[in-house]
Amino acid sequence: MTDLSATGETVPSSDRARRGGRAGKRIGGASAFEQPAFRQLRIPFTPTTIVSDDELESIHLASLRVLKEIGVDVLHEGAKQIMKEHGADVQPGSDRVRFDADIILELISHAPSEFTLHARNPAHNVTFGGNNIVFAMVASAPNCSDNDRGRRPGNQEDYRNFLRLAQMHNIIHLTGGYPVEPIDIHPSVRHLECIRDLATLTDKVFHIYSLGKERNVDGIELTRIARGISREQLEREPSVFTIINTNSPLKLDIPMMEGIIQMSSAGQVVVVTPFTLSGAMAPVTIAGALVQQNAEALAGLAFAQMVKKGAPVAYGGFTSNVDMKSGAPAFGTPEYMKAQIVGGQLARRYNIPYRTSNTCAANAVDAQSAYESVFSLWGAIQGGGNFMMHAAGWLEGGLRASFEKVILDVDLLQMVAEYLAPLDLSEDALAVDAIRDVGPGGHFFGTPHTQSRYKNAFYSPVLSDWRNFESWSEAGSPTALEKANRVFKERLATYEQPVMDPAIREELDAFVDKRRAEGGAPTDF
Amino acid sequence: MTDLSATGETVPSSDRARRGGRAGKRIGGASAFEQPAFRQLRIPFTPTTIVSDDELESIHLASLRVLKEIGVDVLHEGAKQIMKEHGADVQPGSDRVRFDADIILELISHAPSEFTLHARNPAHNVTFGGNNIVFAMVASAPNCSDNDRGRRPGNQEDYRNFLRLAQMHNIIHLTGGYPVEPIDIHPSVRHLECIRDLATLTDKVFHIYSLGKERNVDGIELTRIARGISREQLEREPSVFTIINTNSPLKLDIPMMEGIIQMSSAGQVVVVTPFTLSGAMAPVTIAGALVQQNAEALAGLAFAQMVKKGAPVAYGGFTSNVDMKSGAPAFGTPEYMKAQIVGGQLARRYNIPYRTSNTCAANAVDAQSAYESVFSLWGAIQGGGNFMMHAAGWLEGGLRASFEKVILDVDLLQMVAEYLAPLDLSEDALAVDAIRDVGPGGHFFGTPHTQSRYKNAFYSPVLSDWRNFESWSEAGSPTALEKANRVFKERLATYEQPVMDPAIREELDAFVDKRRAEGGAPTDF
Repeated sequence: MTDLSATGETVPSSDRARRGGRAGKRIGGASAFEQPAFRQLRIPFTPTTIVSDDELESIHLASLRVLKEIGVDVLHEGAKQIMKEHGADVQPGSDRVRFDADIILELISHAPSEFTLHARNPAHNVTFGGNNIVFAMVASAPNCSDNDRGRRPGNQEDYRNFLRLAQMHNIIHLTGGYPVEPIDIHPSVRHLECIRDLATLTDKVFHIYSLGKERNVDGIELTRIARGISREQLEREPSVFTIINTNSPLKLDIPMMEGIIQMSSAGQVVVVTPFTLSGAMAPVTIAGALVQQNAEALAGLAFAQMVKKGAPVAYGGFTSNVDMKSGAPAFGTPEYMKAQIVGGQLARRYNIPYRTSNTCAANAVDAQSAYESVFSLWGAIQGGGNFMMHAAGWLEGGLRASFEKVILDVDLLQMVAEYLAPLDLSEDALAVDAIRDVGPGGHFFGTPHTQSRYKNAFYSPVLSDWRNFESWSEAGSPTALEKANRVFKERLATYEQPVMDPAIREELDAFVDKRRAEGGAPTDF
Repeated sequence: MTDLSATGETVPSSDRARRGGRAGKRIGGASAFEQPAFRQLRIPFTPTTIVSDDELESIHLASLRVLKEIGVDVLHEGAKQIMKEHGADVQPGSDRVRFDADIILELISHAPSEFTLHARNPAHNVTFGGNNIVFAMVASAPNCSDNDRGRRPGNQEDYRNFLRLAQMHNIIHLTGGYPVEPIDIHPSVRHLECIRDLATLTDKVFHIYSLGKERNVDGIELTRIARGISREQLEREPSVFTIINTNSPLKLDIPMMEGIIQMSSAGQVVVVTPFTLSGAMAPVTIAGALVQQNAEALAGLAFAQMVKKGAPVAYGGFTSNVDMKSGAPAFGTPEYMKAQIVGGQLARRYNIPYRTSNTCAANAVDAQSAYESVFSLWGAIQGGGNFMMHAAGWLEGGLRASFEKVILDVDLLQMVAEYLAPLDLSEDALAVDAIRDVGPGGHFFGTPHTQSRYKNAFYSPVLSDWRNFESWSEAGSPTALEKANRVFKERLATYEQPVMDPAIREELDAFVDKRRAEGGAPTDF
C-alpha cells in the first residue's frame, strides 16, 4: 500500500494510453496494466423508451398533481420563505408547501441542459448532459471489504485506498462522495480530512455532503483552494457537486435545503435524487414510485432554480423495489431497469442531465453481483444516463464498498465504453479486399489486414479468463474474484499521487488546520 | 432423477402460473417453485441502432460485392445446379458460385417476415419474427457438468436431464438441438434416439441437425408423427427447424446444402448462421466480419428461396471476436454486443426473423459467466433478436452445457421477460391517491394499495440472495452457484413427462425401431 505520509509527489501516469495486447494482464504484472485513456464517453444511439409520450405525460401530470394537491413538507424556514417568495403555497405554522404546475415548470426551464464540471486537473473535467456519460466511484458505504481481511467498518486507510483506485483508473471519471465512511475520524472534522484527501489523492472532480451549512461552506472553499482560483471564477465554473436524497415520501429536511442554498448560490452542482424504494418509501407500483420520484425531484430542482436561476443541477433516478417478504431493498432488478429507462425519459422531457447508478444487492463478488450490476448498467446506459454514481465498487445494496468489486466494475465499465465506441465503417474496415485475399475456406489469422490491426482490434479484459478448460484447470481454476483480489493490490502498489502546486497544498493544509482548531462542524445532524 | 423407462405419463404441470411470494424458493421446497406461465414474449421498444442507415447500406453493398466478385464455394452438385437454374454464375469444373445482387435480393424478398413454429403441444407454439422473442435451450455442447460430478463428456442420461429442464421451465420456449452430445449412443442411430427423446420428453418445438439427407428425412418424419398430422399439413405448418452454420469463410458444404434442400422443400425452418469469428474465420474488423456474415447469410437464405419460394427462414448472427493472443473465441464481449445489434439492423433491412445467442466464454458459473451472459442478452434484446439459441445452460464458449448455468439463465431470462413486460400506467398504478393517503414522511408498507398488490408486484428471483449480510453469513455465505446446484436437482426430481397419445408413441417407436433395424444413417459425415 502506498504510504500517504510521503510528501514526495510524482508526475501522474494514470493516463497511459492502451497499447494493446493482454500478455501483461494474463501474467498479472502490475506495470503491464493497460487501460484506455481518460476520455469523455458519449452514448451514440437514441436512448431506449419503454413508455409512449402520452404515458410519459401521464406520469408528469400525476407528479404535478402531487405537488399541487398534496405538497411536500419543508423543514427549513429559510427555504420555505424562498418558496413563498416564488409563489408557492406556504401556510403559517405548517411545513407543508404546495406548488402550482406553472411555477415548477417555469423554474426548471432555467436549468442548463449541459454543463462542465471542472477538476483541479483540467484533463479530468467532465461534462454532464447531452449524450455524455461519466462514471463515479462508489460512495457512502459504511463498510468495506477485501478477500484477505473480510468485511469491516470504514476507516481512513481503506478510504484513502479507494480514492487511489479511483484516481488511477481512467474509466472512473470522478469520485462521488466517501467511497467508505472513515469512522475513525471524528465527525466534526471528518469532512475536512476527507475533502483534503479527495483534493490531494485525486485530481478528479469530487462531491461534498450536504450535512449542515458549515460542511458545504468548507467544502466549497476547499474546492476553490484546490483549483487555485478566485471565488468569482469558481462561481462561473461548477467544480464540485452534492447529492440531495429527499426524505421520501415528500419530505425535504434542513440539511438538504441548506445544501441546495449553499451550492446553488455558489454556482455549484446539485443532484436531486429521491430515494424512492417501491413498496417502502414509495408506492408498490413502479409507475407510482416514478410519479413520486418525479414530484420530489421537481420540487428540489425547482428550489435550486429559486436560489439561483440557471444553477447547474441533475435529475437523479434511484427508484428500485424491495423484497416484499423481508422489506430488504433489491437492486439490478427488472423493475430497477424499467425505472432507470423511464427516469431517463423524464429527465430528457425536462432537458436536465440524468443521474443513474450501478447497483447490486449481492453479499459477495459472485454471479449475482455481476448480473445485478450488468442489468443496472443496461438500464442506465440504454436509458440515456449522463452521470452514473456508484459505478465502481458497490456491493450489498450500498452497505459495502468492495475492493474486488472495484476491479470487476472497472472491467465492466471499460466494456460498456467499448460498446459505446463508434464502429469503424471505413472502406478498409469493411474488408472486402481482405475477404477476397483469404477466399473461401481460408483463414484470417496471419493476413496483413489482421496483422496490422490485431493489437488494438478488441477490448482486452482485466478479469475475463478465456483460457481453455484444461489450461484454466491446471492454473487452479481461478475465479474472477481471486483475480480481482490480486489486481487491486497490484494496482495500489503502483499508485502515484497526482502533482499539486506546493503553495496550493500549503493553503489547503492551513485551511484544514484552522478549521480543525475551530472545532470543525457541529455533529448534531 | 426421473426414470425415463417409466411409461406412465401424467398431465403436464409446468405451466402453473406464478402465484407470487418467494417463501418456497427461499427454503428450497421444489413444490414451491413458481414461474410465470409459458408465453410468447415481445420486445415493446424500438431496437437500438448503432450504425446509420447509410452505414448499414455500406455493409449491405459490400456483402453484395463479396457475393458478386468473390462468390462462395458450393460443394453440393445438386445445389450448384439449382443455383445455376436461378441465374447464378456457375462454371463447369468449379465449386465457385457468384451471384448478382438483384438475384439475391429478389429471392430473399420471398422469405416470410413472421411465421409460427408448431409444437406437438399447441400451447407451446412459437412465433418467429416481428417483435417476438423466443428462447431456446443450449445446444451441441460436447461436454456437460454439474457441481457434484464435475465436467464430463455428454451421455444419454445427462442429455435427457437437460431436455427435462427445458420442458419444465416456461421461459425456455423450445429446444435448439442436443443440449449435450450423447456420445454413448452410436452416431448411426443417435439422431433417432435423440429425436425420440426430444419428441417425448418435451412437447415443445425442437431442432434437427443437417448431417446428411437421411437425418433430415428421419427428423422431419419423426416430427410429423409426433404431431400426429399429415405430410400436407406439416408442409403448411413449419414444425421443426435446422441451423445451418456456414463454413466460414464463404463455403457451403454438402450436408448443409442438403439440409436446406430437405427442410425448405418440406416447408420447415432453416436458420442460416455464419460462424464468423472476427480475427479467425472472418476479418479482424467487426465491420468486415459483418460484411462476411451478411454475404454468407444471404447466400444461404437465397438458396432456401430457390428451393421453395416463401420457405420460412431466419437470419442468424453469431459474429464474435477471438482472443488475438491465443486464438480462443471470446463471447459476451463489447464487440459481440455491437455485432448482435448491427446483425439485427441487417435482418430487419431484409425483413427476416433474427436469430441471436446467449453466450459466454467462462469456465465456471462465476461472475464472468454472469457478466458475459448478461452482456450477450443486452446485445440480443436491444438488437431486436427474435429467436435466441443457447439461451439457457451455455458455458465455456459452447464446449459445455452446465446444469447450474441452466438455472442461472432461467433466472436471467425471466428477468429479461419482466423487463420486456409493459409497465402498468393505469390511474390506479400512478397511485396519486396512495401517495396522498401516506403523505409526507409516511410509509407504504402496510397500506391497502400495497397490500392488494405486493404478492405479484415484483419479479421473484430464483437465485438472488437479498438477505442482509448477517443472515447470509449465518446461512453459510451461499453463492448463486451453490443455490443453482440445489435448485436443478430439486427441479429434476419433480419432472413430469408431457402426455402423448399412446398411438402416436407407438408409431414413433415403430419408426425408430425400423430405422434402427435398417442401420440408421451413414456416419461418414
